[in-house]
Amino acid sequence: MLKVPDHQVAGHQAGGGKLGPLVDDSGHFYKPLQSDERGSQEVAFYTAFSTDTRIPDHFRKFFPVFHGTKLLEASDGSGLYPHLALEDIVSGRTHPCILDAKIGARTWYPKAAEDYLQKCLKKDRETACLDLGFRISGLQVYGNKLTGLWKPDRHVIQSGSVDNSKLALRKFVSSNPSTDSDIKPDCSFTSTVYGGPDGILAQLLVLKSWFEEQTFYHFYSCSVLMVYDKESILQGKNRGAQIKLVDFAHVIDGRGVIDHNFLGGLCSLIKMITDIVTSPST
Amino acid sequence: MLKVPDHQVAGHQAGGGKLGPLVDDSGHFYKPLQSDERGSQEVAFYTAFSTDTRIPDHFRKFFPVFHGTKLLEASDGSGLYPHLALEDIVSGRTHPCILDAKIGARTWYPKAAEDYLQKCLKKDRETACLDLGFRISGLQVYGNKLTGLWKPDRHVIQSGSVDNSKLALRKFVSSNPSTDSDIKPDCSFTSTVYGGPDGILAQLLVLKSWFEEQTFYHFYSCSVLMVYDKESILQGKNRGAQIKLVDFAHVIDGRGVIDHNFLGGLCSLIKMITDIVTSPST
Repeated sequence: MLKVPDHQVAGHQAGGGKLGPLVDDSGHFYKPLQSDERGSQEVAFYTAFSTDTRIPDHFRKFFPVFHGTKLLEASDGSGLYPHLALEDIVSGRTHPCILDAKIGARTWYPKAAEDYLQKCLKKDRETACLDLGFRISGLQVYGNKLTGLWKPDRHVIQSGSVDNSKLALRKFVSSNPSTDSDIKPDCSFTSTVYGGPDGILAQLLVLKSWFEEQTFYHFYSCSVLMVYDKESILQGKNRGAQIKLVDFAHVIDGRGVIDHNFLGGLCSLIKMITDIVTSPST
Repeated sequence: MLKVPDHQVAGHQAGGGKLGPLVDDSGHFYKPLQSDERGSQEVAFYTAFSTDTRIPDHFRKFFPVFHGTKLLEASDGSGLYPHLALEDIVSGRTHPCILDAKIGARTWYPKAAEDYLQKCLKKDRETACLDLGFRISGLQVYGNKLTGLWKPDRHVIQSGSVDNSKLALRKFVSSNPSTDSDIKPDCSFTSTVYGGPDGILAQLLVLKSWFEEQTFYHFYSCSVLMVYDKESILQGKNRGAQIKLVDFAHVIDGRGVIDHNFLGGLCSLIKMITDIVTSPST
């Protein structure tokens, strides 16, 4: 049984006759191939990466499992269409809190065509991307049964200033997320979500250590997805917070150089989360 | 007694009626203020930085000591002209080997004017800067008494590919530096210059640790200068290799974010030097 995902904070969304991703009950996420070369490039990346023996397992876990491509009925009703079959990262999480951070001050790659470069550059300059080294593409935070899900308009989030982005990272681990600027985020889940030996910060630091070394791939316009389930944390269940890299339509060969654009942005995100872990109350 | 420096590998050079830096016998380097806002910005940076109590001493040592500004007879014969009075980094070194690496894939800052941005972007794209995260602006290596100083044309160096830049980093620590592509650099000074507890790599890693933390300054178009004296190494003297940051005409307020552009480029340089230290013979 295919359906439109309940929890998607960024990217193309299905529904209303639009082409977008689908999920099933067995933990698969089906992403329709983008129609231009981005689609074929993303398939090429997943195919190459999934069999790349140079990638140690403790870094591979930061990528969704790839199950090949599949022809499925497209969500826009246009008939059979090729989809990437991927691990559904939020599967089994009842009230997932999700933050999508697109990493890198530069979303275009060195050999990009002039018009594509200028289009990306314009967006990088209009958002806080150049300042921050990343931009928050979307988020949702589950407050509680009464307040439900807080999911701010993603265009507002994307165009937010540096301070707004810092604030969003605080709201992501708060029990009182709100658009109301008078409500100060309480950051009450900081230590369990960002902190601790298996928390998001620890995972980001492992990812960083890989990016300091690896010269195989450069990830342009790729996101770090952070996911956790507030209910399971409140109930003391085991499944903790997780990070995953997603969106590989603009991955290019690293040709013996580290991905300094991604690494720089990742370090910026790490610094901001470190500041929250160190001083959650400020 | 003011004179034109013997050892300068990048930047504006005095002589032939041109305005350029001067040195004296007491270890001072006098840099004429650039005529536009770059001059005043560099003075402003040195002035603010030299009294900035937030900078721990073990990071401050990576910056030239600042002795204020001074009106001196300009090297172009135009009369008295304001100069920055700085520590002369190569003073006292007989045959200094010098490498100037401009750090950061992006040499323009987010709020830069459109024409300046496009000019920088063009140069960043024409050089290996975008690929590497830095570019080598110039270098000189002293071979021996017979071969003397090897100082390749800096326009050739600047426009070099990724592979050429890697090669230049090898030649910098070789006893047989040469433009001849048949001569393989022997990397015989790798362990004493790049390696060891006080070597360039160790210093770069300390610098990196500061850039992972500091959110005060963003250093656009700034260089890491690496300096060592082959003679003093061969004679087993104490004075080892040194790194210094130079060129601060485009430093801006970090406004609470790390300098991910500089940090990314620095990590790329560190990775390349690490590879040479690990495998000097390949």
